[in-house]
Amino acid sequence: MLLHFLPDIQQGNIKSLARCISLIENEAKGYEDFLRALPISSAKIIGVTGPPGAGKSTLTDALIGKLVEKGKKIAVLCVDPSSPFNMGALLGDRIRMSEWYNHPMVFIRSLATRGSLGGLNSKIIEITDLLKAAAFDFIIVETVGVGQSEVEIAGLADTTIVVLVPESGDEIQTMKSGLMEIADIFVVNKSDRPDADQFVKNLQSILAHGPENTIIHIPVIKTIASQKKGVEELAAFILQADTTKKNNRKKALLTEKAYQLIINKRMKDVSKNDLTKKINQQLEAGDFNLYSFIENY
Amino acid sequence: MLLHFLPDIQQGNIKSLARCISLIENEAKGYEDFLRALPISSAKIIGVTGPPGAGKSTLTDALIGKLVEKGKKIAVLCVDPSSPFNMGALLGDRIRMSEWYNHPMVFIRSLATRGSLGGLNSKIIEITDLLKAAAFDFIIVETVGVGQSEVEIAGLADTTIVVLVPESGDEIQTMKSGLMEIADIFVVNKSDRPDADQFVKNLQSILAHGPENTIIHIPVIKTIASQKKGVEELAAFILQADTTKKNNRKKALLTEKAYQLIINKRMKDVSKNDLTKKINQQLEAGDFNLYSFIENY
Repeated sequence: MLLHFLPDIQQGNIKSLARCISLIENEAKGYEDFLRALPISSAKIIGVTGPPGAGKSTLTDALIGKLVEKGKKIAVLCVDPSSPFNMGALLGDRIRMSEWYNHPMVFIRSLATRGSLGGLNSKIIEITDLLKAAAFDFIIVETVGVGQSEVEIAGLADTTIVVLVPESGDEIQTMKSGLMEIADIFVVNKSDRPDADQFVKNLQSILAHGPENTIIHIPVIKTIASQKKGVEELAAFILQADTTKKNNRKKALLTEKAYQLIINKRMKDVSKNDLTKKINQQLEAGDFNLYSFIENY
Repeated sequence: MLLHFLPDIQQGNIKSLARCISLIENEAKGYEDFLRALPISSAKIIGVTGPPGAGKSTLTDALIGKLVEKGKKIAVLCVDPSSPFNMGALLGDRIRMSEWYNHPMVFIRSLATRGSLGGLNSKIIEITDLLKAAAFDFIIVETVGVGQSEVEIAGLADTTIVVLVPESGDEIQTMKSGLMEIADIFVVNKSDRPDADQFVKNLQSILAHGPENTIIHIPVIKTIASQKKGVEELAAFILQADTTKKNNRKKALLTEKAYQLIINKRMKDVSKNDLTKKINQQLEAGDFNLYSFIENY
């Protein structure tokens, strides 16, 4: 029974936590009761997103260090298949790429994107709820910033970090509005590259002229994650960020999720196999009418 | 009240029919009762599909002629945005491309693909059910054969005609299995082109070696639709085709449709706006738990 794990999890038992994530992913018996029993928590979710190759994992790695230094407990969920954190999920083998894998204050888990409509794992909300109950201070969700996953991460995260590199110039122009809408802070990583300053200037100029000439105040910071440079500033931003602002994307995400869960609940007794069988019987009897069938089902 | 139209429609009133299609598309009040009241009919649905430029519309035009000659009443639904039949839907203006538009035995309607998951109109099943009740002998559904629409057309149609042209050579190799699975007959149109015979030979050879070395008997006929050549043979095939065979695709399509309709019925009382409002209240009160919310909704 999943509920038995709850005290263990609240006390920070990593093995129980890992087991519960798997049980939730597999919708093990009682997982809904278990999720209902989770206490409300004020832990914050940090989204780290951006194009492949921007150095999201290296940045996350450095960020973990800074936050742990400050006494914070950190969970990392990785739904980015290109991330080194995700090698385990990809190779079926837990290659420990990071010094943090065995640190008592840090929990790292790779998630498949299976079954998800967008880019994130279909149980991502449930899993972050579980991690919140496990008394982590921050839950970092790393994901490739493409398409639907952007919208999802923005709804899920209290603070969304968009990581770019000086080479992202062209991408910015096309992804512009999407990224501006979701970013709470831009990180220009690998900022020791020659055209970094020009890139930051361009980015700031784009941000200064938001959609319909609104002025958008999104901070831009430079980092060299591989040398831990600029990461202190990023950690400071996260620690002081005001996450109480109204978040329409969070409500939209939760509404879609709730709607889907209500469908699942109400359709539990309907099996497609049974539908097919009954439709076939009526087709063979030559008296199938779709809307009568529905009405009487 | 939609039901009042039924006697008119059964007597072949074209105006009532056109009106009812629009009312069904717009889910006008009572449309479900109306659909339940439709009598079972033995009218056959003919799917005409294939790549853009294969001459599907010209072939359909010629086929209408042959079937009308034989005293058949024909309805044509066009969900192919590239079809001349569809100019009205595209240009917002009913350009009459075909001599059949005003013929008493023929009804032509263009449908948007709006709201459909695959390539076909989201009310295509309902509309074909309506046309069956309107005492047409054949309902021709013309659609571009790409992606999801192929699967849908194969589920919907009693006979599926796949139209190719000699230039389709490369396409065949890639679309091969998909087209072989759905085709009841292949039409090689524009067969006066130089490499037509070679193309037919290649196609027959591919068909002779189906998946897992099964031998597939799908007839291949040559047409020059613009000169009405080969169309008599096609009409003869349609008229004598055995459509009583078990059709797993039809059952799959109806199962998916029925499942979605049951969801719609059971979710009628759930509005996303209301969900958002209640989620927001609980978020602001600081005690939102997704699974408790669902349980108590």
